[in-house]
Amino acid sequence: MPQGQPLVTPADGLTTRQRRNRPLVMVHTGDGKGKSTAAFGLALRGWNQGWSIGIFQFVKSAKWRLGEQTAFERLPTGDGLGSVEWHKMGSGWSWSRKDGTEEDHAAAAAEGWAEIKRRMLAEEHDLYLLDEFTYPINWGWVDLDDVLATLGARPGHQHVVITGRRADPRLVEAADLVTEMTKVKHPMDAGQKGQKGIEW
Amino acid sequence: MPQGQPLVTPADGLTTRQRRNRPLVMVHTGDGKGKSTAAFGLALRGWNQGWSIGIFQFVKSAKWRLGEQTAFERLPTGDGLGSVEWHKMGSGWSWSRKDGTEEDHAAAAAEGWAEIKRRMLAEEHDLYLLDEFTYPINWGWVDLDDVLATLGARPGHQHVVITGRRADPRLVEAADLVTEMTKVKHPMDAGQKGQKGIEW
Repeated sequence: MPQGQPLVTPADGLTTRQRRNRPLVMVHTGDGKGKSTAAFGLALRGWNQGWSIGIFQFVKSAKWRLGEQTAFERLPTGDGLGSVEWHKMGSGWSWSRKDGTEEDHAAAAAEGWAEIKRRMLAEEHDLYLLDEFTYPINWGWVDLDDVLATLGARPGHQHVVITGRRADPRLVEAADLVTEMTKVKHPMDAGQKGQKGIEW
Repeated sequence: MPQGQPLVTPADGLTTRQRRNRPLVMVHTGDGKGKSTAAFGLALRGWNQGWSIGIFQFVKSAKWRLGEQTAFERLPTGDGLGSVEWHKMGSGWSWSRKDGTEEDHAAAAAEGWAEIKRRMLAEEHDLYLLDEFTYPINWGWVDLDDVLATLGARPGHQHVVITGRRADPRLVEAADLVTEMTKVKHPMDAGQKGQKGIEW
């Protein structure tokens, strides 16, 4: 973690305090592990700061990070502590369940993004965790221009963290903080499959 | 996250099931953010699997990850859920408080490692989170040969995750899973200091 003095003092007319508290767009990308795990850890820290947190999982998966979800559901709220809303794409978002219908993932992703956009305009959350959001962007399901315009114009003090491989260079350019998780070595390379507690 | 089939099938005489459940040594290194945050996220997931988790923080800091600690302290235990012990170096480890004495960080680090070694031999935890453990190794406070021998010979089924910059190449070689967090862009580069909820 960087320590000490910033490398440059920007000529943006802000005080150090204003600059320090500027809301951030963060991106966790790369082929390594830890992109989502670190984002959920950030949400955990935000919860302790009393933040309202919206988690939106964009890619349907058999491994829905149930460990994290169970933990977040068991955390207390109120009394200066935060609150966590957890929404998954898949068989409809949790605010619009459509059981038994054929999935239209592109439409579901677009619907998810529209809801997030609505919430950002209404300043509903302090932190938005858009998990695996790079994929619907890269697949053309969500319009990157719209994402960048919305992030750039979001009101108030709302942090956003976006995870997923192959973040678009324009998203990287627009972000304040970008970390690339690089796989140096993985047990799969040595013939080992994922296991409980480690991968999900 | 890797999906599907392993790239190779190793000739180690183990069944897929045995191989899948092999305990792992994991290393999160690099100059980027998320090394510790992802490790704490892993601990959260382990808690949900009912694991006994030992967290050992090796570098004294004003920012003791209080968010994560508060969250872990508030998580329930029992009923198939795990338990988390949290130990910090600094003014003495929590099992041997020595208030008011002059710090001897090298001795404290060595004492911390001796305790971890003792616990590994006794198979006390399912997951050891050795946070910022690369530093005392690199500073010569903890003997790398001893660490590698202890990890290599640890009995039972104990996972270990080690975080910190500049992981020694021999530690990387010995680990099963290594992720490097690379800083692509950080607000400090644009003159912004760390802020609550994001950095601690």
